[in-house]
Amino acid sequence: MKAPVRKQIGVIGAGTCSNETRSLAEAVGKEIAKKGAVLLCGGLGGVMEAAAYGAKLEGGMTIGILPGTCREDANPWIDIAILSGMGHARNALIAQSSDALIAVSGEYGTLSEMAFGLKMGKPVFVLDCKWKIEGVKRARSPQEAVEFALALIKNQYRTGKLNEEQEKSNEE
Amino acid sequence: MKAPVRKQIGVIGAGTCSNETRSLAEAVGKEIAKKGAVLLCGGLGGVMEAAAYGAKLEGGMTIGILPGTCREDANPWIDIAILSGMGHARNALIAQSSDALIAVSGEYGTLSEMAFGLKMGKPVFVLDCKWKIEGVKRARSPQEAVEFALALIKNQYRTGKLNEEQEKSNEE
Amino acid sequence: MKAPVRKQIGVIGAGTCSNETRSLAEAVGKEIAKKGAVLLCGGLGGVMEAAAYGAKLEGGMTIGILPGTCREDANPWIDIAILSGMGHARNALIAQSSDALIAVSGEYGTLSEMAFGLKMGKPVFVLDCKWKIEGVKRARSPQEAVEFALALIKNQYRTGKLNEEQEKSNEE
Amino acid sequence: MKAPVRKQIGVIGAGTCSNETRSLAEAVGKEIAKKGAVLLCGGLGGVMEAAAYGAKLEGGMTIGILPGTCREDANPWIDIAILSGMGHARNALIAQSSDALIAVSGEYGTLSEMAFGLKMGKPVFVLDCKWKIEGVKRARSPQEAVEFALALIKNQYRTGKLNEEQEKSNEE
Repeated sequence: MKAPVRKQIGVIGAGTCSNETRSLAEAVGKEIAKKGAVLLCGGLGGVMEAAAYGAKLEGGMTIGILPGTCREDANPWIDIAILSGMGHARNALIAQSSDALIAVSGEYGTLSEMAFGLKMGKPVFVLDCKWKIEGVKRARSPQEAVEFALALIKNQYRTGKLNEEQEKSNEE
Repeated sequence: MKAPVRKQIGVIGAGTCSNETRSLAEAVGKEIAKKGAVLLCGGLGGVMEAAAYGAKLEGGMTIGILPGTCREDANPWIDIAILSGMGHARNALIAQSSDALIAVSGEYGTLSEMAFGLKMGKPVFVLDCKWKIEGVKRARSPQEAVEFALALIKNQYRTGKLNEEQEKSNEE
Repeated sequence: MKAPVRKQIGVIGAGTCSNETRSLAEAVGKEIAKKGAVLLCGGLGGVMEAAAYGAKLEGGMTIGILPGTCREDANPWIDIAILSGMGHARNALIAQSSDALIAVSGEYGTLSEMAFGLKMGKPVFVLDCKWKIEGVKRARSPQEAVEFALALIKNQYRTGKLNEEQEKSNEE
Repeated sequence: MKAPVRKQIGVIGAGTCSNETRSLAEAVGKEIAKKGAVLLCGGLGGVMEAAAYGAKLEGGMTIGILPGTCREDANPWIDIAILSGMGHARNALIAQSSDALIAVSGEYGTLSEMAFGLKMGKPVFVLDCKWKIEGVKRARSPQEAVEFALALIKNQYRTGKLNEEQEKSNEE
């Protein structure tokens, strides 16, 4: 357990989107998984689904914080479903639980998440964003967004320790 | 109880603000009270306090939906304190519980509330706002903001009925 | 504004109930209003509606913290509707925003609110309760429940001050 | 991705506890991991920490839904931290996101989670519980609790499909 705590990157965007946006989101998800980070998202369709799909293509881990109370609402690429039952207010939880946020296009819901991220002092990156909000960082590609996001998240290490044998059996 | 349900107008803005912004917020609060609507806000300082103060100057009713769990955090002009203990996520509750929103200046927290309001299909008015967000309506004065907001909220009537004597004793 | 902040008493109980339970809840609501306290509840039917009705019979003020996002879900005796959109989690907000809680009968939802109230250190009274939970206070009548609850809530005074004329115009 | 969605079992209990309770919780965590389920908990100390430690001993996956906003608050055995910032209201999210709940001893917070679980129709098991609440199932051992809980959760299968090669690379 000397390994650092896995970084959690939130990918935010609309529940329905163009194919172009979908491709960007998928590439972001792939990149997050390749780098060993955990993908957090709202668990539904559109950008959330494309990003989760991308992450699973690379064997990554995907968490969905859903607005409702039903596991079946999660898109098929979500490993862990947090059923908030809080509706729109769950956007605050996504921003809060993410070490950094990457917005891909997006509508008002995404804007609320970006605003929360900025308010909470998180790095907020955007790909293809229609709003101009000071503090938001524009990325030129999914790769750049993930790389820069990871660079801005400080490492955190586990303080707990299993014994050596257990460590070994936990290594993947 | 044939009287319509009282309209609830949310006033949103930063917890610290300039004197100019404070004056605008106070005028918004006064106007809301004069029109017989209920003022909803985040219950803290700055714009929230100025608006609540304005409403109390006119004998209005003020509700604060606070981020914390402590009544003492409410500014002195709050009649009813909803202690959400939800931190930033309470912004969603303010937007959701307001029939219309009026933003006075504001920072990222306000932006999240505006975004929620728009997402929920509420009328969102701004006075002195630095962001350009499609869907937001610019008001030229506190009076205009309140007047236009009220015009856009549809009336709702109570379905319940007390008997005549009780009605009378409930009239204020 | 030298008047103390109005005490907020939460009345909790099931959304459907027997006539006997309804009578108890109505009497609790009446008593709360008579004493000048504000009634908080979940805003729906059954115990919540009976308590709110009782409070309105006495000209009281009623606040409903609803699970959903729709004003129309509130029972007809709710003055101010807080639309939490949080489902069951709103039970925590009711407990947290109440200076004391009075449970009238009740099911699992009520049990969660009682548990929250106890966890938060609030006085929790019950009328006709099927569970035995240490820390819960049994009241012999609605009058006793409200009287004892009020006695346990410490007074809080407003720190803000309007000028004398304004004070006067705000007195009801 | 023909594999069923992993079952999520919530382990609930107090933030400080006796050694005996700790041993029970650790055994519950181990059993959950052995059976391939995901451990959900509140992410803090006491029962939550012991259960997460047990799960990690067996190479399991652990999710903490924390009341606060700080990753450092999570106990050292939490893989994924959901930072709710909602205080006590997060208890509803734990109950809601768990397919079944296992309470190990516990105080008022645990009681609120049990109540939510019952309200939401989830199987709720207890080990060493001081309250008698109808609907709660008493287990005689950690093994029995986990086995019976899993038996009551219906399988859910992913509807999405990666291609064969990707499937293979995602198998662990």
